[in-house]
Amino acid sequence: MQDGAPDGGHDGTSSFRLFGAAATTPVADALTDDAAWARAMLAFEGALARAAGEVGLVDAAAATVVAEVCAKAGQDVRAHLDLAALATGTATQATPVVDLVRQLRALVPADARHAVHVAATSQDVVDTAAMLVMRDCVGATYDEVAAIFEQLAGLARGHRSTAMVGRTLLQHGEPTTFGALCAVRLVAVREALAKASTLTGRPPVQLGGAVGTLAAAGTARQALVERVADLLGLSVPLTSWHPTRGPVVEIAASLGILAGELTGIAQDVVLLASTDVAEVSVATPGGSSAMPHKQNSSRAVLALACAHRVPGLVATLFAGMPGELQRAAGRWQAEAPVLVDLLRLVDATAAHVRASLDGLVVHPDRMRTAVDALLARTGGTLDTSAAEAVVDRALGGPHEEDHA
Amino acid sequence: MQDGAPDGGHDGTSSFRLFGAAATTPVADALTDDAAWARAMLAFEGALARAAGEVGLVDAAAATVVAEVCAKAGQDVRAHLDLAALATGTATQATPVVDLVRQLRALVPADARHAVHVAATSQDVVDTAAMLVMRDCVGATYDEVAAIFEQLAGLARGHRSTAMVGRTLLQHGEPTTFGALCAVRLVAVREALAKASTLTGRPPVQLGGAVGTLAAAGTARQALVERVADLLGLSVPLTSWHPTRGPVVEIAASLGILAGELTGIAQDVVLLASTDVAEVSVATPGGSSAMPHKQNSSRAVLALACAHRVPGLVATLFAGMPGELQRAAGRWQAEAPVLVDLLRLVDATAAHVRASLDGLVVHPDRMRTAVDALLARTGGTLDTSAAEAVVDRALGGPHEEDHA
Amino acid sequence: MQDGAPDGGHDGTSSFRLFGAAATTPVADALTDDAAWARAMLAFEGALARAAGEVGLVDAAAATVVAEVCAKAGQDVRAHLDLAALATGTATQATPVVDLVRQLRALVPADARHAVHVAATSQDVVDTAAMLVMRDCVGATYDEVAAIFEQLAGLARGHRSTAMVGRTLLQHGEPTTFGALCAVRLVAVREALAKASTLTGRPPVQLGGAVGTLAAAGTARQALVERVADLLGLSVPLTSWHPTRGPVVEIAASLGILAGELTGIAQDVVLLASTDVAEVSVATPGGSSAMPHKQNSSRAVLALACAHRVPGLVATLFAGMPGELQRAAGRWQAEAPVLVDLLRLVDATAAHVRASLDGLVVHPDRMRTAVDALLARTGGTLDTSAAEAVVDRALGGPHEEDHA
Amino acid sequence: MQDGAPDGGHDGTSSFRLFGAAATTPVADALTDDAAWARAMLAFEGALARAAGEVGLVDAAAATVVAEVCAKAGQDVRAHLDLAALATGTATQATPVVDLVRQLRALVPADARHAVHVAATSQDVVDTAAMLVMRDCVGATYDEVAAIFEQLAGLARGHRSTAMVGRTLLQHGEPTTFGALCAVRLVAVREALAKASTLTGRPPVQLGGAVGTLAAAGTARQALVERVADLLGLSVPLTSWHPTRGPVVEIAASLGILAGELTGIAQDVVLLASTDVAEVSVATPGGSSAMPHKQNSSRAVLALACAHRVPGLVATLFAGMPGELQRAAGRWQAEAPVLVDLLRLVDATAAHVRASLDGLVVHPDRMRTAVDALLARTGGTLDTSAAEAVVDRALGGPHEEDHA
Repeated sequence: MQDGAPDGGHDGTSSFRLFGAAATTPVADALTDDAAWARAMLAFEGALARAAGEVGLVDAAAATVVAEVCAKAGQDVRAHLDLAALATGTATQATPVVDLVRQLRALVPADARHAVHVAATSQDVVDTAAMLVMRDCVGATYDEVAAIFEQLAGLARGHRSTAMVGRTLLQHGEPTTFGALCAVRLVAVREALAKASTLTGRPPVQLGGAVGTLAAAGTARQALVERVADLLGLSVPLTSWHPTRGPVVEIAASLGILAGELTGIAQDVVLLASTDVAEVSVATPGGSSAMPHKQNSSRAVLALACAHRVPGLVATLFAGMPGELQRAAGRWQAEAPVLVDLLRLVDATAAHVRASLDGLVVHPDRMRTAVDALLARTGGTLDTSAAEAVVDRALGGPHEEDHA
Repeated sequence: MQDGAPDGGHDGTSSFRLFGAAATTPVADALTDDAAWARAMLAFEGALARAAGEVGLVDAAAATVVAEVCAKAGQDVRAHLDLAALATGTATQATPVVDLVRQLRALVPADARHAVHVAATSQDVVDTAAMLVMRDCVGATYDEVAAIFEQLAGLARGHRSTAMVGRTLLQHGEPTTFGALCAVRLVAVREALAKASTLTGRPPVQLGGAVGTLAAAGTARQALVERVADLLGLSVPLTSWHPTRGPVVEIAASLGILAGELTGIAQDVVLLASTDVAEVSVATPGGSSAMPHKQNSSRAVLALACAHRVPGLVATLFAGMPGELQRAAGRWQAEAPVLVDLLRLVDATAAHVRASLDGLVVHPDRMRTAVDALLARTGGTLDTSAAEAVVDRALGGPHEEDHA
Repeated sequence: MQDGAPDGGHDGTSSFRLFGAAATTPVADALTDDAAWARAMLAFEGALARAAGEVGLVDAAAATVVAEVCAKAGQDVRAHLDLAALATGTATQATPVVDLVRQLRALVPADARHAVHVAATSQDVVDTAAMLVMRDCVGATYDEVAAIFEQLAGLARGHRSTAMVGRTLLQHGEPTTFGALCAVRLVAVREALAKASTLTGRPPVQLGGAVGTLAAAGTARQALVERVADLLGLSVPLTSWHPTRGPVVEIAASLGILAGELTGIAQDVVLLASTDVAEVSVATPGGSSAMPHKQNSSRAVLALACAHRVPGLVATLFAGMPGELQRAAGRWQAEAPVLVDLLRLVDATAAHVRASLDGLVVHPDRMRTAVDALLARTGGTLDTSAAEAVVDRALGGPHEEDHA
Repeated sequence: MQDGAPDGGHDGTSSFRLFGAAATTPVADALTDDAAWARAMLAFEGALARAAGEVGLVDAAAATVVAEVCAKAGQDVRAHLDLAALATGTATQATPVVDLVRQLRALVPADARHAVHVAATSQDVVDTAAMLVMRDCVGATYDEVAAIFEQLAGLARGHRSTAMVGRTLLQHGEPTTFGALCAVRLVAVREALAKASTLTGRPPVQLGGAVGTLAAAGTARQALVERVADLLGLSVPLTSWHPTRGPVVEIAASLGILAGELTGIAQDVVLLASTDVAEVSVATPGGSSAMPHKQNSSRAVLALACAHRVPGLVATLFAGMPGELQRAAGRWQAEAPVLVDLLRLVDATAAHVRASLDGLVVHPDRMRTAVDALLARTGGTLDTSAAEAVVDRALGGPHEEDHA
């Protein structure tokens, strides 16, 4: 049908870049696309074969052959695998793994085929691949966030004493400094990152076989799990976790929190760069098709748009937690695509926040005008020392009052 | 970056078909992809130009030229527009329309360029295009749902008197018939469809210009709105609705309800086809990488997986409703991609439900065994007349009791 | 346990008014509390008995006795029913109806007891009561919204020509009028109300008996349904709808849209009353424990807080749609409390919006200053006629351009 | 209005116990009700006064007086505070703290009043109180979960070798044991509890004053924060966190995961106790108003109903994360009531799961019949050793294969 559409893509795939491009990044795309998933699944199958050989479940030579085929195919998955056939498998059988195993067996010499997919079930492949894909993609996001730290730290340091009005419920409250605002955001994002990266550093392998007992591996089952985990740099769970999705959802939640904290930055930019406040200006404003004079905080707006979609995705994963008995019938099958959307949107949120801060112009004079107006109403005098201390604590500098 | 990835797509676009293929259909893809959006935006610009000429806002000849350029480009958008540039516009300016207008102007002879994008703002283009894309895509979904009606009606008619146990809270309750179960599902889906199609039949145009007053059209503004709406087969809203998203969210909600009612069918198939119940069998079960004897209700499972994602998307649209003042800064910008996900998932839900019903094998003997066991416990005798009346009412047949 | 708590309530019930009072209204509380539900359930049982007598299912005299007992008990439910026992029933049996029927039978003379709860199942009682409770409560909300119409219409009329800057993405765009902004919000809320009230005016009765066929009513089943519906002012569904929740979810969605459109008003108040914009002032600002000079738009903030909770509730109802086979095991049981939260929050949203508009002070001078600054930048001249036409169209006044 | 309602509560408060009783527990109610919040807010004010005295911000004697008044009032808050007035404060000013401070000052001798609410802002009180309320309430939930561990451990141990069919996608797969199923659920819940309790053990205090810098405390600010935290058993955050909600949302997410893992148990009970499977029976089934023979798994169903509401609440908290600038205008104000709903629902989920397991009857003969039927189809022989190893690993027993 799509082939007959007047403007169908050349390769039979759909596209939704026109709006979708704002909801991801090229990096996140490449780390979560079909090839990335296929590589991750091959990495699992390769590690499984190698481990099965090592623990004596299959002939060691055959195991090595399978592992090598997986490694080679993983170098260029599109050349070795028919990814469209995998997709068809997902769309008809609810898993790509039946077809993946078929394709992989065809790549392996006949006498080594018995070493393919030993003892495993399809969910083992997908769950473990999800952990690998996720780990790779968040790595890129964390780099982006680290760059945001640098931006915020620079702003906090440079504007440690730049007086601005503190706004609560969008009403002018008392003076603070722009540096203190940046410092509070910095601390929040840093803590969110620290917690997310702890979870994603060494997530658990999944290897439970047909019904979670890995019975097909006989007495070698625990050794097999440990060896596969070790080969892939994953941790060993106490038991397999097919119907208990905590390991996935806790990562998703930590990314949701990271996105939420990043959003605060974007929202501050939108508000402070609004014409009415005008205390900052973005370096590269977006234009308008109707009003050429407008200076839209487009990247900050896009960060808000991306982050706005995150809670619904996180909730979908929470709602999908309870798997029926030994393995789920429906909700688990929604997990991988939601996870990909989440990874891409969180990375895009970070990228848009970074872009919105890149070259941000701060207007200390505008800020000071508002402070002076506030002090004229409330009768105080300006003292920024408390705000400066917030900056110092966030940046790890000296805290005089700690020793007072 | 992605270009350098070992397996990047040829056209620089990302792919996520491996799991994503189960969450859409080729038809829904083609009706919501970049080309579909570009066609819809061109349709708006063409209608706007033509209407502007007719109401005297611009030179009639120039207007005709622009409308013809839009029509021609809409025949093959990939040949006339640089869609990647539009995507870049979205990803940097938060709208593809600034660049779209630039590209469109370049396609138009210099002396007609003043007739391009008259009086409109970028959100007018995107909102109206969203309505056009949505209307086309749900048309395909409705066809799919109509086919499900036929399936359910056939099952209801064929099994009008096939006794089965009614299960409440998954406990055996009292006898009913399989036809009655199909009839209840049929009625629910039919009503959901009727309500959705009322909303999507003639959704409102968006045309408010810079700040919602369409001031740039002078006293021709209302005539312009009415003519554009008429040319596109849309309705005329009382005012423009940039910051009030009711027209979009009510459609999304109606699709969410349609998906919810379809899900009931899928869930029934999964439960009735479970090994423990085994009162129906799917015609084309999915396989297992570990257990070749299994007969997975894969398409019903995929319907559940698709529908599981719908409430989160609908909630995201609800949460995005309040636009700030004249036009929103963040949440509106999330609307188009969420709408596309929703359209695709609802179509996929329908397609999977249809596939799960296609060739469904009903086992009246198994059903009867359970009924007999129940009656042995409860002491009643079998009378299916009330269940048959449910079928008759749903299918519009004679209702004896109506005249009792 | 709670009895032993130092500050337990006298009647053994919990309280959460300290924050909860902002998330409801006294009116909505009274229309959705235990007594309201008990009255609604008694109304169902009374109508059921009366109808059963009329259609000949039970002795007419007995039916009348039961109906009269229900009517009398409904006058003062706390005096006739042990509501705490009903709550215990819900908390242990997942339904209050088993105990309700027991209590009701005890109130009826022995020779009329056979006319109690004829042919019905517990979900019939709860679903129908939910429709009655909902209809009553939204009636109060609609009154509140009607008052908001008056406020908005007054503001739109009074400020039809009050020039203000139109803000898009929070950037100054082009001039409009404050009246036009009010008019756009008015239209959106009015349409949301019209659609919600259509659905809630005559929602369907639920009466399907044990497994949805109402078999226990024999050939009188359809007459029974029609008569019960008629007595309660409800509509007659084509079939019972135990596992298909469209009738509930479509109402919930329509209320969610109403809340979403109301939220726009609250958000505008918060932004326009912010110190930086200061184009309106609320009549009764909230105070601050730390900053006595602050003028918080507290009621508008509370409207945002209430409405913020609505999408999650609506999504919960959407996610709960698919009931398992003849009746659901888990998700349906979450519906009544979520519906109550929703009804209360939507009413509270309306009440807070109304309070935020009550006595709103508009500052045309501040608005004009911003307009002049904008025109100084963009070089235009002020013409508010297009904005005035928006007001006229919204208020139903003359539309000159319609006849141009 | 409510006072005039025919069945209004005696104390003017609304009630929604009739369905609400199933969505909480008496313990969770008592630990999250108005009195609990008032006690927590008084604890904060008392600690603040004491600390302010100690660090020299206020006269030490006055500070002691205030602290003692807070302590005494906290013993019986209803006798010392007008809680209804606090609720009115929340419903009109968006915070109860302005009125709380007023009431507290009135309880304190005039010469000590300057030591009340020193340097703090209202959000400091509410955020810190939320942490205290949350910590107390989850403590009760954790006790409930610990009891579930005992139940699951007992079942896992007792049915370590009880063969049952493993069901994946609800199809019979391969044999496992009932003990292994219990063990997998046990591990998941135990890990979810461990992570939640780490977060809730020592959550951060909130003390930032008007705009987050605690400027009003001068150079004593850091000492003040540290002392307040210490007195309340809370941790010291690097900076105040008014507009960055990570500390709240990460706790909420961890509770959501706990609820999700608990739900798996409930779902298993519902499925295994269904008439079609009948491999377990609940000890105290719920009845039916229409079908006295039914044995509903009511408490497991209620656990599903409670847990079904959790993702929407968690998503609401995620969506509320980004506070505007120094303090939020709307979304933060929704946090406390959502947190209370979440705490109650998670506790209720645990209580219902525990009740559903209490006295659970396992039917090894039914399980074995299904296993034999499966083995007759697939031709294998029964070997439960791998399943037994799952139990042993979960319970910490000997793992022979670890040393193979």
